[in-house]
Amino acid sequence: MAPAEVVRPDKDMQQCIQACLECYRTCLETVTYCVQRGGRHAEVSHIRLLLDCVEICQTSANFLLRGSELHTRTCFACAEVCERCAESCEDLGGDSMMKACADMCRRCEESCRKMSAGIMPQAPNLEAAQRAADLPA
Amino acid sequence: MAPAEVVRPDKDMQQCIQACLECYRTCLETVTYCVQRGGRHAEVSHIRLLLDCVEICQTSANFLLRGSELHTRTCFACAEVCERCAESCEDLGGDSMMKACADMCRRCEESCRKMSAGIMPQAPNLEAAQRAADLPA
Amino acid sequence: MAPAEVVRPDKDMQQCIQACLECYRTCLETVTYCVQRGGRHAEVSHIRLLLDCVEICQTSANFLLRGSELHTRTCFACAEVCERCAESCEDLGGDSMMKACADMCRRCEESCRKMSAGIMPQAPNLEAAQRAADLPA
Amino acid sequence: MAPAEVVRPDKDMQQCIQACLECYRTCLETVTYCVQRGGRHAEVSHIRLLLDCVEICQTSANFLLRGSELHTRTCFACAEVCERCAESCEDLGGDSMMKACADMCRRCEESCRKMSAGIMPQAPNLEAAQRAADLPA
Repeated sequence: MAPAEVVRPDKDMQQCIQACLECYRTCLETVTYCVQRGGRHAEVSHIRLLLDCVEICQTSANFLLRGSELHTRTCFACAEVCERCAESCEDLGGDSMMKACADMCRRCEESCRKMSAGIMPQAPNLEAAQRAADLPA
Repeated sequence: MAPAEVVRPDKDMQQCIQACLECYRTCLETVTYCVQRGGRHAEVSHIRLLLDCVEICQTSANFLLRGSELHTRTCFACAEVCERCAESCEDLGGDSMMKACADMCRRCEESCRKMSAGIMPQAPNLEAAQRAADLPA
Repeated sequence: MAPAEVVRPDKDMQQCIQACLECYRTCLETVTYCVQRGGRHAEVSHIRLLLDCVEICQTSANFLLRGSELHTRTCFACAEVCERCAESCEDLGGDSMMKACADMCRRCEESCRKMSAGIMPQAPNLEAAQRAADLPA
Repeated sequence: MAPAEVVRPDKDMQQCIQACLECYRTCLETVTYCVQRGGRHAEVSHIRLLLDCVEICQTSANFLLRGSELHTRTCFACAEVCERCAESCEDLGGDSMMKACADMCRRCEESCRKMSAGIMPQAPNLEAAQRAADLPA
C-alpha cells in the first residue's frame, strides 16, 4: 500500500469539497419541497434519487475533508448519482427549484468526475479495459 | 432513464445489507480501540481508513435499504474501501481485534463486489472497455 | 471535565444500541413505503419525521458505539423524535407497516429514555430544577 | 400534535445552519490533524469528542435544513457536545488549530443554545423543575 500521508487539498479538491457540500444542502432542501408539492415531484424514484444524492455528496465531501486516498471511489459514485439526480430534476422542468437543483447536481457531477479520473473497477482483464477505455470513441 | 420501481431486496441484497451494517459497527468500535492503544494502531492512515470504512458501509447499506438502482456504485466504492481497510488491519496482525475487523471487512468486500458486478466508469470507449474487461486475463 | 475513559457498554447500553440500529433501519425502509403509497402516508410532516428518526437513531447508536459520555444528550433527542414518529405512524393506523414502525419507535424511545435519565439543560438554577424534577409529580 | 407545516428558516435558523455546517467541517479536519500530531492531541477522549461533534453538527444542520419541528432537541444535544469539544480543544491551548476549533465550537454552541431555548426533558415534576430553573441562581 502506498505511504499514507495527509493528502493536502489542492485547488481542485477544495472546489470539489465545496461542490459536494452545496449539492448535499440543495438536495436536502429539495426533498422537502418535492414531498410537499406532491404529484410527479413526489414519485418514489425522484425522492429516492434526491436522498441518494444527499447522502453520497456528504460521504464524498467527508472523504475529501479527511484527505483519504480512496476519495476517487466515492467521487466516482457521487458523479454517477449526481448525473441521475440532475436528469430526474430536468424531467420535471419548468420549475425554478428543479432547475436550480439540476444545475447544482451538474456542477457537482463535473467536479467529482474530474476527481475520480482513472478509476476502473477490478475486472479479469483490467489493463486491456483501461487501454480500450482510453481510446477515442 | 429506466423505470424506477422499488428494487425488492433479494437474498444477495439482504446479505449485503447485513454485511455492511456489521462492518460499519465493527469498524466504528475498532476506531476507539485503536486510538486508545496508540502506536502503530493509531497512525493517521489506519484511523482514516477505519473512518472511511464506517462511513461508506453506512452509505452502502442505506442505498440498499432504499432499494436504490445506483447501489452498484456505492457497493463498488464500499468494496474498494473494505479491501484497503482489511489490508491495514492485517498489517497490524497478532491482535484479535485487528483480526476480527479484517475478517469482517473481507466479508463485506466480497458481498459488495458481488453487488457491484459490471460497474464501469464512463470512458470514451466504454463498450470496448467492457468487452476487454470481460475477457479472461 | 470528568476523566474520559472508555465507557464499557453494559447490558442497557447494548440493548439501546440494538434498538437504535433496528429503529433506524425500520424507519428508512418505511420512508420508501410511505412515499410510494402516497396520500396521507406521503404528507411532508410524516416523511420528515421518518427521516428525522432515521438520522437521530444512527447518531444515537454511534455515540453509544464510541462509548461517548455525551450519549445521554443524543439518547434524549432520539427518545423525543421516536415518540413523535410513533405517534405519526399510529395516526395512519390500520396498516401493518405503520404498526410495525410505530412499535419499533416505541421500543427505541423507551430504551433511549432510560439511557438519558437525568439530563437537564443548563439553566440559571439547575440544581434546584434537578431537585424539583426528581420529586414525585 | 401541532400542524406540521414547513418551518421557514428565519435569520436565526439560517445562522445556526451555517454555524453547524462550518463546525462539522472544522472538527472533521481537526480529527486528522490531531491523530497525526499524536501525544495529548490524540488521546481517545479528545478524538472521540471531535468525532461526536462532527456527527451531531451534521445531524443538527440536517434537522434545520428539513425544517423539522424537533430541531430544538438536536440543537440542544449539539450545544452540549460543542461546549465539551471547545473545552477539550482549549485544554490543548497554545496551538492555532486547537484555538480555531475551540472558537468555532463556541460559536456553534451559542447559536444552538439559542435555537434550543426552553427544551426540558420529561421528568416527574417538570413544571416545578421549569419554575425552579427559571429562578436566578
